Amino acid sequence: MIEGNETLSGRMTDAGHELLARVYYADTDFSGAVYHGRYLEFLERGRSDFLRVLGVHHTDLQAGHTGEPLFWVVKRMEIDFVAPARIDDVLTISTRVAEPGKARIRMAQEIRRGGALLIAATVEAAVINDAGRPRRFPKEWLALFATPGAQAPNSGEMS
Amino acid sequence: MIEGNETLSGRMTDAGHELLARVYYADTDFSGAVYHGRYLEFLERGRSDFLRVLGVHHTDLQAGHTGEPLFWVVKRMEIDFVAPARIDDVLTISTRVAEPGKARIRMAQEIRRGGALLIAATVEAAVINDAGRPRRFPKEWLALFATPGAQAPNSGEMS
Amino acid sequence: MIEGNETLSGRMTDAGHELLARVYYADTDFSGAVYHGRYLEFLERGRSDFLRVLGVHHTDLQAGHTGEPLFWVVKRMEIDFVAPARIDDVLTISTRVAEPGKARIRMAQEIRRGGALLIAATVEAAVINDAGRPRRFPKEWLALFATPGAQAPNSGEMS
Amino acid sequence: MIEGNETLSGRMTDAGHELLARVYYADTDFSGAVYHGRYLEFLERGRSDFLRVLGVHHTDLQAGHTGEPLFWVVKRMEIDFVAPARIDDVLTISTRVAEPGKARIRMAQEIRRGGALLIAATVEAAVINDAGRPRRFPKEWLALFATPGAQAPNSGEMS
Repeated sequence: MIEGNETLSGRMTDAGHELLARVYYADTDFSGAVYHGRYLEFLERGRSDFLRVLGVHHTDLQAGHTGEPLFWVVKRMEIDFVAPARIDDVLTISTRVAEPGKARIRMAQEIRRGGALLIAATVEAAVINDAGRPRRFPKEWLALFATPGAQAPNSGEMS
Repeated sequence: MIEGNETLSGRMTDAGHELLARVYYADTDFSGAVYHGRYLEFLERGRSDFLRVLGVHHTDLQAGHTGEPLFWVVKRMEIDFVAPARIDDVLTISTRVAEPGKARIRMAQEIRRGGALLIAATVEAAVINDAGRPRRFPKEWLALFATPGAQAPNSGEMS
Repeated sequence: MIEGNETLSGRMTDAGHELLARVYYADTDFSGAVYHGRYLEFLERGRSDFLRVLGVHHTDLQAGHTGEPLFWVVKRMEIDFVAPARIDDVLTISTRVAEPGKARIRMAQEIRRGGALLIAATVEAAVINDAGRPRRFPKEWLALFATPGAQAPNSGEMS
Repeated sequence: MIEGNETLSGRMTDAGHELLARVYYADTDFSGAVYHGRYLEFLERGRSDFLRVLGVHHTDLQAGHTGEPLFWVVKRMEIDFVAPARIDDVLTISTRVAEPGKARIRMAQEIRRGGALLIAATVEAAVINDAGRPRRFPKEWLALFATPGAQAPNSGEMS
């Protein structure tokens, strides 16, 4: 049952983190399909819940639990809009580490509807402090990013 | 376990339909809390899934399964922004019929975080065809809207 | 020429502040019209630019220029969705003070396309500090809110 | 005066189309800066107004003025998030044709605040009919896309 037992935060699978999300009115535009910019929100949910399942919470980062207030920022994205999602669709957002690094991580993400690929994206993200300065990832994250399921099969290491 | 067994579309309870939703980066603004306009998206998810659980699907309406293409529209809202939601929060969106009518329905909605009320709203909605003309609700909906759990305790009938 | 001489921040008229804004893809939904929640963004632009023209800037408030960091929050809205806006439309957002108060202000706002009323809203707003506590408006604002054009003809005073 | 004489739809310059846009609450997230997905909305405004200034209107396309209902879709984007925009900022969105084609166009876009580059993007877009099938651009567009100012200096032709 597709809507049954998944939790609100998705789950780790052999192929990475998977999160289900529904398409609502707010996500669509007058062409009848999902507005292209809204796919970035679905992708963000996937990355946020990937981190959440690994134990990394935005609230903890903001509260300075790792030393100073930290925020995730996206540095670069490449997105292929392969096919459109539509109202009422249930989407599967998958998220894997493609290249972990010391201060920047590249993630491979996909959005599918059933077996059909709709969106393929690579996302480079980093953390900054509240003055906007880039910060190294906390050391324990490097182990987290190497969790089975978190990494894509052929991932290298980002310099 | 709050994130456990709920399905993607929420469920009917004695107090109406309940849906869980997470707050992500996209929902917040620079004040640190959820942007006030984004609560309307959470409320829309609640109403869309309330209808979905009752068997009313936007895709079917758009496809003309009831005779001609139909779309839900919001005609009026009153919203009290009682307390702010924040990043990572898990919200419960509750939706009940306050006043059913033949061509317009008033719904009572709330957004809570645990026991705390964040948003209280009344929403009047109607259906239009693709020329924008208002349409009566299909007869079978009136029975649906009277489903136990769908109606608020003191609901009257909308003229 | 409707698009000609208005500045980016709109202008004060006898009937209040007026701002022009275009409808883009991002504002619409699959029904073909503007998504109901997006009207709140147009209304926010109107209120933000109403304040900007009076000399009140969000950046100054956040930076604590009035004593401590302050943010505007919306406390209550009533919105009538009278008629839909569509892609490419040029909208006029009008904003007037309906009831000024010491710590809360009620504004009357409308969105029109040419002569046609699309949205009518009343919005109660307040300011909070960064701990979320409500704060009185700086004294000089009360004079600003009484600026000719800022006030609606029959405005009373909010208790 | 930066806010003075620009029209609502921006203008063609030697370096391409330029549009001014303000950052509002709705555009920001709790990190204090503009939410990364919202930059795609600013870029869309730029492309929509670039087309508008050339005489291509979404409403005409949807109404089938070129033969059948047509909609623009984005096929691929590459975006570098160079520096953050913040509340109250006035942004300049610039849009140029990088590679015109018969059924697909690549555009080069930038978002700047004053002289500072915030966002650099390349966007591949196409038109589809309302069944979702790709369509060749109307012939007269090829001339439009070659308008002085519309093309980037080194643009080739897309196969």
